[in-house]
Amino acid sequence: MNYFSSDFKLGILGGGQLGKMLLYETRKFDIHTKVLDPSPEAPSKIACNEFFEGDLLDYDTVYNFGKKVDVLTIEIENVNTKALEKLESEGVKVYPQTDALHIIQNKATQKLFYVDNNIPTAPFSRFAYTSEIEDSVANGGLTFPFVWKSAQFGYDGQGVKVVRSLKDLEGLPNSECIAETMIPFKNELAVIVVRNPSGQTVSYPVVEMEFHPEANQVEYVLCPARISDEVAQKAIDVALKVSEKIQHIGILAVEMFQTKDDEILVNEVAPRPHNSGHYSIEASYTNQFEQHIRAILDLPLGSTESKVAGIMVNLVGAEGHTGEVVYQNMEKILQLDGVTPHIYGKKQTRPFRKMGHVTIVNQDIAQARKIAEKVKNTIKVISK
Amino acid sequence: MNYFSSDFKLGILGGGQLGKMLLYETRKFDIHTKVLDPSPEAPSKIACNEFFEGDLLDYDTVYNFGKKVDVLTIEIENVNTKALEKLESEGVKVYPQTDALHIIQNKATQKLFYVDNNIPTAPFSRFAYTSEIEDSVANGGLTFPFVWKSAQFGYDGQGVKVVRSLKDLEGLPNSECIAETMIPFKNELAVIVVRNPSGQTVSYPVVEMEFHPEANQVEYVLCPARISDEVAQKAIDVALKVSEKIQHIGILAVEMFQTKDDEILVNEVAPRPHNSGHYSIEASYTNQFEQHIRAILDLPLGSTESKVAGIMVNLVGAEGHTGEVVYQNMEKILQLDGVTPHIYGKKQTRPFRKMGHVTIVNQDIAQARKIAEKVKNTIKVISK
Repeated sequence: MNYFSSDFKLGILGGGQLGKMLLYETRKFDIHTKVLDPSPEAPSKIACNEFFEGDLLDYDTVYNFGKKVDVLTIEIENVNTKALEKLESEGVKVYPQTDALHIIQNKATQKLFYVDNNIPTAPFSRFAYTSEIEDSVANGGLTFPFVWKSAQFGYDGQGVKVVRSLKDLEGLPNSECIAETMIPFKNELAVIVVRNPSGQTVSYPVVEMEFHPEANQVEYVLCPARISDEVAQKAIDVALKVSEKIQHIGILAVEMFQTKDDEILVNEVAPRPHNSGHYSIEASYTNQFEQHIRAILDLPLGSTESKVAGIMVNLVGAEGHTGEVVYQNMEKILQLDGVTPHIYGKKQTRPFRKMGHVTIVNQDIAQARKIAEKVKNTIKVISK
Repeated sequence: MNYFSSDFKLGILGGGQLGKMLLYETRKFDIHTKVLDPSPEAPSKIACNEFFEGDLLDYDTVYNFGKKVDVLTIEIENVNTKALEKLESEGVKVYPQTDALHIIQNKATQKLFYVDNNIPTAPFSRFAYTSEIEDSVANGGLTFPFVWKSAQFGYDGQGVKVVRSLKDLEGLPNSECIAETMIPFKNELAVIVVRNPSGQTVSYPVVEMEFHPEANQVEYVLCPARISDEVAQKAIDVALKVSEKIQHIGILAVEMFQTKDDEILVNEVAPRPHNSGHYSIEASYTNQFEQHIRAILDLPLGSTESKVAGIMVNLVGAEGHTGEVVYQNMEKILQLDGVTPHIYGKKQTRPFRKMGHVTIVNQDIAQARKIAEKVKNTIKVISK
């Protein structure tokens, strides 16, 4: 298969912002692209060769789309895997593979996979229904506080809740879930690992995530993480082990906790370009999106080293603002050194909605962190 | 005017590769874009919000297109400036301004402008017709060798010819032209200067260009140039003077010769993103395309410093190959450190046609230069 031939077609399931950033990288190689997304206003529409509107969870829609391409990848995990299995059996290259998606799509399955493979992760219990949790609390099998996680379709902090009393369970969907021990941790870390079909594997430096205390969304991602070399090496070793066990093709973003005792526990993984790797567009020799393209086309993987330190600030809708979006003080943040905005083009804002991100690069991570805080305190995503 | 409002529209005259790279940067700011280009297969089509097919030299076409936008910019100089003048008079912001375009569009006018403003440039004579050159040679007003340049519409080395005897004049178009003294030079250099309407001016580091001896096309662009600090400062001073005199808005790429005596002579300028600034995508804190967008929207200009050394290799069609393009050994150059290809997506190759470029970045310019040469000797743009 010659990826640079005009006959070659790459398909992407999902046409959101991640897909759009992935599509920019396909231009470097002049790859013909097709995108499937349920929304006629999908951000990717502006950057692909052909756009198809359709349901990512519908068997026929995904199957028929997949038959039009040579390699199929995703920008979102919630897709019809039965259709992907069929496509794989008929010779379409599906990356990440259906086997990897099955492990990852369901958080209970994912956690059991870690246990089966001796990968360190926080203790948990699986429940077929949220309502079963009350019994477990009543008979002492579960003690407060714990973290409730929906087994399926979690995104952007939805589907995750800290439970401190039975009252906190009210209103949660009564579906398959896990209850995870709350681990007091020093840091949340992430490592992106990339594999290609020829077996080449590379990992990016460890990044450190700072979360918004209320919204359960990442506020800053710092690369490199401000941790010791020993802890960094431990995190990379764990991430590489997860990658090797899952045998994914393309990107695997491995999110981890660094405990008070400097143990590394895997939190969860995503088999696609990830928020924790956005800094790489400005900071890395090869950004995560180009790297994913290289991987799924079985091209040699690029250097994962950084040219400079990078910090990403998520731009989320301000509280108290719902409606047509306005980016206040954009011109002020552009006066600061090494600042690059990425506005996703969503027309409507609402509290904590992800509207874009800003990357700050600098030779010095401490200086970058200062500028990042200034950026965060200056730009406001409000409504008209 | 709020550039981040959904009402704002940016227009680009020309939908080629430069326009496409410019459009990628508009996505960072979520700017609504319209593109006018004569070709239904223009590369920009994949990256703009609205595409219009039409002649860039036709008054009505350019005028009607311009009336649909708030700010109008160009990716090519050969556009109808009468229409731009009218649009300017009616309140459309045209950047670069028509005045600047008038100076630059015609090479004779451009050279006279340098003379009028005491900007160092190679001696030259202007001719209304190429046929007048013979008389000038006959009466001793002009001696071989000299450089013949068409006053209008030169691009990619077309419209430029070294003349060593009367025979070399055969076949040249009999139109307005200049005959320029051949200057023995050490280096060809370039400096990109950027101005915004508020008057902020920034300049990029001096780059050094290595030309292909036959095709008169740039083979390598190196940033930083391997020249002394004194010569670099002199080149920047000259470029800033040209910029100040022309009073352009947006990018001005100033190409210069460094003579054997370390004098700086201006060769020519381009009022738009330029081949000599492509390295900036990978190497600079703010790449030239983002910088042009910042400038024409009157936003604060970003840092022009480099994160790392950068070298650009132009990918041109190999001699002896005409037809459907194939990029041979792409996978081999991707194994090298810090290599990023940019394939422009032209389907047909022919000898010396610009088909793309490859950027090589490295902490060390000497190492980058070695890798660049390897890239150049490895990848081949051939036909099927």
